[in-house]
Amino acid sequence: MNTQIESAKTGKITEEMQTVARDEGIPVSDLRQRLARGTVIITRNVLRGNVHPIGIGEGLRTKVNANIGTSSDLSDVKLEIAKAKIASKNGADTVMDLSTSGNLNQIRRKLIKSVTIPFGSVPIYQSAIETAVKKGSIVDMTEDDIFNTIEQQAKDGVDFITVHCGVTKQIVKHITEHPRLMGVVSRGGTFLVTWILHNKKETPLYENFDYLLELAKRYDITLSLGDAFRPGSIFDSTDWPQMQELLTIGKLVERAYRANVQTMVEGPGHIPLNHIDANVHLEKSVCKGAPFYVLGPVVTDIAPGYDHIVAAIGGSLAAMAGADFLCYVCPSEHLGIPTIEDVKAGVVTMRIAAHAADIVKLGSKASVWDLRMDQARAKLDWSKQFKLALDSDQARKVHERVKPKVAGTCTMCGKWCALKLLADQLNKPELARITCL
Amino acid sequence: MNTQIESAKTGKITEEMQTVARDEGIPVSDLRQRLARGTVIITRNVLRGNVHPIGIGEGLRTKVNANIGTSSDLSDVKLEIAKAKIASKNGADTVMDLSTSGNLNQIRRKLIKSVTIPFGSVPIYQSAIETAVKKGSIVDMTEDDIFNTIEQQAKDGVDFITVHCGVTKQIVKHITEHPRLMGVVSRGGTFLVTWILHNKKETPLYENFDYLLELAKRYDITLSLGDAFRPGSIFDSTDWPQMQELLTIGKLVERAYRANVQTMVEGPGHIPLNHIDANVHLEKSVCKGAPFYVLGPVVTDIAPGYDHIVAAIGGSLAAMAGADFLCYVCPSEHLGIPTIEDVKAGVVTMRIAAHAADIVKLGSKASVWDLRMDQARAKLDWSKQFKLALDSDQARKVHERVKPKVAGTCTMCGKWCALKLLADQLNKPELARITCL
Repeated sequence: MNTQIESAKTGKITEEMQTVARDEGIPVSDLRQRLARGTVIITRNVLRGNVHPIGIGEGLRTKVNANIGTSSDLSDVKLEIAKAKIASKNGADTVMDLSTSGNLNQIRRKLIKSVTIPFGSVPIYQSAIETAVKKGSIVDMTEDDIFNTIEQQAKDGVDFITVHCGVTKQIVKHITEHPRLMGVVSRGGTFLVTWILHNKKETPLYENFDYLLELAKRYDITLSLGDAFRPGSIFDSTDWPQMQELLTIGKLVERAYRANVQTMVEGPGHIPLNHIDANVHLEKSVCKGAPFYVLGPVVTDIAPGYDHIVAAIGGSLAAMAGADFLCYVCPSEHLGIPTIEDVKAGVVTMRIAAHAADIVKLGSKASVWDLRMDQARAKLDWSKQFKLALDSDQARKVHERVKPKVAGTCTMCGKWCALKLLADQLNKPELARITCL
Repeated sequence: MNTQIESAKTGKITEEMQTVARDEGIPVSDLRQRLARGTVIITRNVLRGNVHPIGIGEGLRTKVNANIGTSSDLSDVKLEIAKAKIASKNGADTVMDLSTSGNLNQIRRKLIKSVTIPFGSVPIYQSAIETAVKKGSIVDMTEDDIFNTIEQQAKDGVDFITVHCGVTKQIVKHITEHPRLMGVVSRGGTFLVTWILHNKKETPLYENFDYLLELAKRYDITLSLGDAFRPGSIFDSTDWPQMQELLTIGKLVERAYRANVQTMVEGPGHIPLNHIDANVHLEKSVCKGAPFYVLGPVVTDIAPGYDHIVAAIGGSLAAMAGADFLCYVCPSEHLGIPTIEDVKAGVVTMRIAAHAADIVKLGSKASVWDLRMDQARAKLDWSKQFKLALDSDQARKVHERVKPKVAGTCTMCGKWCALKLLADQLNKPELARITCL
């Protein structure tokens, strides 16, 4: 069995490559070359049944991920399945299970079966939490605890996993000596920092990265190299720990590439608008063009309750600069576990950001959607506008809230509709709208 | 009586300058110099009672405007007053009355009295609509109809008015010969284009701009030079009509400057992400640094129902590039007249965009808000977080939806709270969070 990257390097076109090339509207030979260079990945575990594979990376549509999962305060697998389904229905390209409560194996297996989009996870949650339950503390987590969990999740068909392999003793030492405003805000990162502080050695994920590569290769799981030291405040943005972790990850990306394991790189986090461009270019440069997967970015910290919007602002800029994969943020971020409605809002909002950037990145391949909408809008063809809208139900609902008196218009301008006015006033239908329709 | 710019040019510090300089935390002498150069305006009609004047422009906090107003489908002054109040309560810096139905004088007078923030209007709506009612068609609107309305509104205390003075026969001829995808989407612009097509001459707003300047000077009304040819589709962005109108406006800004009339310039509209920077720099260059007032920009056309978010993405970029004043967009944009909730959502969303940009434009003067939030967040001080949140009620509501089992945490991570974990696991409170708090 070859991994996608291995096939690509040897010139072999896989079924997955054909699917992705067709979906993206690009020649499969181009896609193969990008896979072979490591600038595109296809997230697909060889054991995962019933999945529509997607490509992430250079020259492809910007993808959006939705995080779901139980917490110790709300652990209801049915609710999480509903979240997975609504995320997928509203256009999430992938979903990640971040469950930290309940029967984690069972939850994961049920969630994987509930959707046909690629599925990700963060195995260190399960390793740490099960260790804490069994042995009393996460610091007693062994190499076996970590790798057995990863293999278990791989066998369940998980397509990509976040692994915080860039957490090293050096960075932990630095951060204890040079505290940051928000410290470590990555959950998985905190588990590993805690582990290092107690055990005073490198984690198995770093120390035994070659074994992780073996495991990943066996199932063609994509490694999403996690950013444990992502800034949790715009004041920690692009600082020494964040950059040192990126440099460490850059070297791991090269090792994975040589081992024919697909990788992507995770990025911040809380960074101000004017740091985004540099962060994207740094990742692309240090990690040899490996796909960049960013959380937000969150460009201000003052709007809890609206962080889906804050993240969409950052996400659109990041994607325009070259980020390939945007992790959504929910309105409930920094406040609590998301509801089903939060998940939908998060997905729709981040898809707006991704598409706005794709207009720039992909040109007419993306903007043809806008073109069709504008044509329908200029003709005041409402049913077509609803059909084309990112969220048809919502568009229709808002439009129909107040009934317009003049057929075909909306209640904002009513009879003074700019799109109807010229033709009506001059009684010259040929001047209608001075449009090229 | 001197206008603010006249005072500034002659070295006089007005009470309004002192208020604005204090609010912005800058030396009043700096503010006076910027006013004297025309790069900052203070929107304040000399007849307006009960208003807190604000400055807009170079080096000042990015401001946000909320449009309200009746339409022929929903004409309820009480509803519009409620919208003005909720906009102001949620931090709108100005409000504009775009009413097109009902007793327009009465509505305006009631709305002006309902808030203490600067108040704007688009007098051509009233001129055109009253002409249509009286004479049957807006094309019969006379110079007196236009200027009498403007003077009436000035006497009512309106602080700034949109006037589409850049609509010329030349551009109208061009646009009829070279149709665009969405034609003319500005309501006021459409009135004037229609008028030109019928009357075959320049509009009084352009032809008799000097008289407009006299009127504006008398009340120190700020002229907001409207962009009738703003693109209504990303495919019309930065095209010949839009650019020609900007060039025309550039000359009018200079005439206003010489006449000691305060001006700002309105900008698009629907433009893709990668056109924003150029549009801002063009305006700043052609209009000699006059404050730039942008609508959105709206960076994709596919998300009706979410255009407040689409506009916040564009607005944050525009403001970072140098735009000074962001007109909010409501979730109901392109679909219907906004509800009170839409107005709130529009204001809050655009304030996020403005603040994210101000972190870049103003540095610590803006980001101190984030700093305080991050300090509260790192300490898990929820009541302080709610107090500092842009929308305190919403933040509290989301946080309290599900009760956390572990005091002080939120239900996202529960007992695995990254901010608590280190200290708890290692039983070393001094390592808590590795933060500098």
